[in-house]
Amino acid sequence: MATLCRPAVSVPEHVITMQQTLDLARTIHADHPQLQLALRLMENTGVQKRHLLRPIEETLRHDGFDVRNRIYEAEAKARVPAVINRALEDAELRAADIDVIIYVSCTGFMMPSLTAWLINTMGFRSDTRQVPIAQLGCAAGGAAINRAHDFCTAYPEANALIVACEFCSLCYQPTDLGVGNLLSNGLFGDGLAAAVMRGQGGTGVTLERNGSYLVPDTEDWIAYDVRSTGFHFKLDKRVPATMEPLAPALKDLAGQHGWDASDLDFYIIHAGGPRILDDLSKFLGVPAEAFRFSRATLTEYGNIASAVVLDALRRLFDEGSAHPTARGLLAGFGPGITAEMSLGRWTVSDRASERLGTRVIADVPDRALAEEPTRVG
Amino acid sequence: MATLCRPAVSVPEHVITMQQTLDLARTIHADHPQLQLALRLMENTGVQKRHLLRPIEETLRHDGFDVRNRIYEAEAKARVPAVINRALEDAELRAADIDVIIYVSCTGFMMPSLTAWLINTMGFRSDTRQVPIAQLGCAAGGAAINRAHDFCTAYPEANALIVACEFCSLCYQPTDLGVGNLLSNGLFGDGLAAAVMRGQGGTGVTLERNGSYLVPDTEDWIAYDVRSTGFHFKLDKRVPATMEPLAPALKDLAGQHGWDASDLDFYIIHAGGPRILDDLSKFLGVPAEAFRFSRATLTEYGNIASAVVLDALRRLFDEGSAHPTARGLLAGFGPGITAEMSLGRWTVSDRASERLGTRVIADVPDRALAEEPTRVG
Repeated sequence: MATLCRPAVSVPEHVITMQQTLDLARTIHADHPQLQLALRLMENTGVQKRHLLRPIEETLRHDGFDVRNRIYEAEAKARVPAVINRALEDAELRAADIDVIIYVSCTGFMMPSLTAWLINTMGFRSDTRQVPIAQLGCAAGGAAINRAHDFCTAYPEANALIVACEFCSLCYQPTDLGVGNLLSNGLFGDGLAAAVMRGQGGTGVTLERNGSYLVPDTEDWIAYDVRSTGFHFKLDKRVPATMEPLAPALKDLAGQHGWDASDLDFYIIHAGGPRILDDLSKFLGVPAEAFRFSRATLTEYGNIASAVVLDALRRLFDEGSAHPTARGLLAGFGPGITAEMSLGRWTVSDRASERLGTRVIADVPDRALAEEPTRVG
Repeated sequence: MATLCRPAVSVPEHVITMQQTLDLARTIHADHPQLQLALRLMENTGVQKRHLLRPIEETLRHDGFDVRNRIYEAEAKARVPAVINRALEDAELRAADIDVIIYVSCTGFMMPSLTAWLINTMGFRSDTRQVPIAQLGCAAGGAAINRAHDFCTAYPEANALIVACEFCSLCYQPTDLGVGNLLSNGLFGDGLAAAVMRGQGGTGVTLERNGSYLVPDTEDWIAYDVRSTGFHFKLDKRVPATMEPLAPALKDLAGQHGWDASDLDFYIIHAGGPRILDDLSKFLGVPAEAFRFSRATLTEYGNIASAVVLDALRRLFDEGSAHPTARGLLAGFGPGITAEMSLGRWTVSDRASERLGTRVIADVPDRALAEEPTRVG
């Protein structure tokens, strides 16, 4: 029984508020014929602030794809180890206990993947499996959970490490002026997360079933145009309405498991945007409050791509409200349009319950890493 | 028990011989101070011809990363379905029987991955899992086999489809003039392959164990420099000597399984270059002849990256020499430096043995797809 332990999350130190974002948009796009629409869409996201790798002046400058990829690599190396160490600590494991690293990131590209560097520098075993995934976008957080679950199902004694590293600000393209681009410029943020899935033991969500769903004929709704200037994000205006075809897939998965998707104890949902959350709560028939973790991620960090589900899950841990055997649904959504969904039950490890109960994972230092932006020297 | 069925392979229609490659190098790099060394290295590869997507004049022109990625996408869509259909046929399955598609390719980048398009256009179920891997380079063929094996171990009734699509000629960089680059220009070819892993039944290699190994501190030996001009391949001169540290990992894996890596019935090895094969036969203590499948791939197609192991395996099927319960080793090598290794046993499905014996999978039309370059209208 694979248990997804508490994710560690970190966001960079440069903060931009929604007010600053709107002011910037008004300045940069003063002559844009659809400026008012774009501003309204940005405000409607509910994002209050986002965290960025670099000061806004630098973020807005396009230094070329070469430079951006070098920044990606340097910043990933500077920031990822801290979240991994914290995730290992929370799972009470050492690097050498990990059998597979699933590294998901769609905002920079390296070959070999960062996994090789992590294994070489952080004490992982040389026989650790590497599963780097760059092409599932925001759905990759859910995909990483699901592939880790599959791995632990195949090898019940194994432990998996999930890492999501998303520096969306490195994909800002000043020449992309569609309304979808302007909206994205106000929606996406930078953030990274890591979580351990323990094959045995551990406190967190014990996964029972996972599934994928591709909404037919939507493969160009969310896509990258890969160009000499880097990844250009294309967002179709039909994307916010995708919960109508996706909600039945979530219900089906729950139904196959004998559960009712409308009546679960917790929901960890990719906060792609506000309409995703509003619609899903409507189509599933659950109160908006059920999505409070995802909503908080969106409000405080913006859409941090594949890291959203891990941050929302971290908030469930920190709230400390889940009771043993509470049943929940996790879902990442992204390009394809793909949903990566899983069902699990809150589990408290024997050792943890002997000590302090579930609250052990919601203490002050635990919050610190997530709440305090990382400061990288 | 997951069985890897016969891979289908195709290579594009434009052929360049080694003699043409050498002549070209002499013309283009007439003033290169290390031309003679580069020519000698190219000749030593043993590559006799390679297949390219486009005529050599077009291949040598750099039309920009934007254009190259568009070509990648168009050619993948034009060529991948045929190998998938053939692989499904050989495995006696339909698209709807596939539960996961593992798509590996390091020579172009798309988001969403080609998997979304394949699901939409080829009759795969909407709940098919997508595992696109772009960052394991040549090792990804072995990684795809291993992750498919893991998946079928987790879900014993499941079937996996592996696709390797490598258009190395789209990564030709005319401005890269290191000896390693010149060598690579004469070594890599284009090719694509697909294979089905059946959870139940099927004729082929029934996988029993897999493992990964990362040679410590070699992560910059094979790497991409990701730039506005695309992927720039960096090959360290120490790479050909990596079998010395990797052979013990192969021996260890076999040893854990109670097998002797020096005494197996077949070997399906990534043919990165001639020294890889020479050294590995030396360090494992097996005759060069044991690597004849890999050698044939190298000679006829060059290094076709992640597709090499699938093509070498296809040649084992076509030779028809494997007897039931023959034991073998499969291994992909690539950036990291990573080895993705597996052990398996030749199995003949009950249905096949009832009909015609193993020769059923080595008949004339089977060879046709591999031997005849695809002609795409």
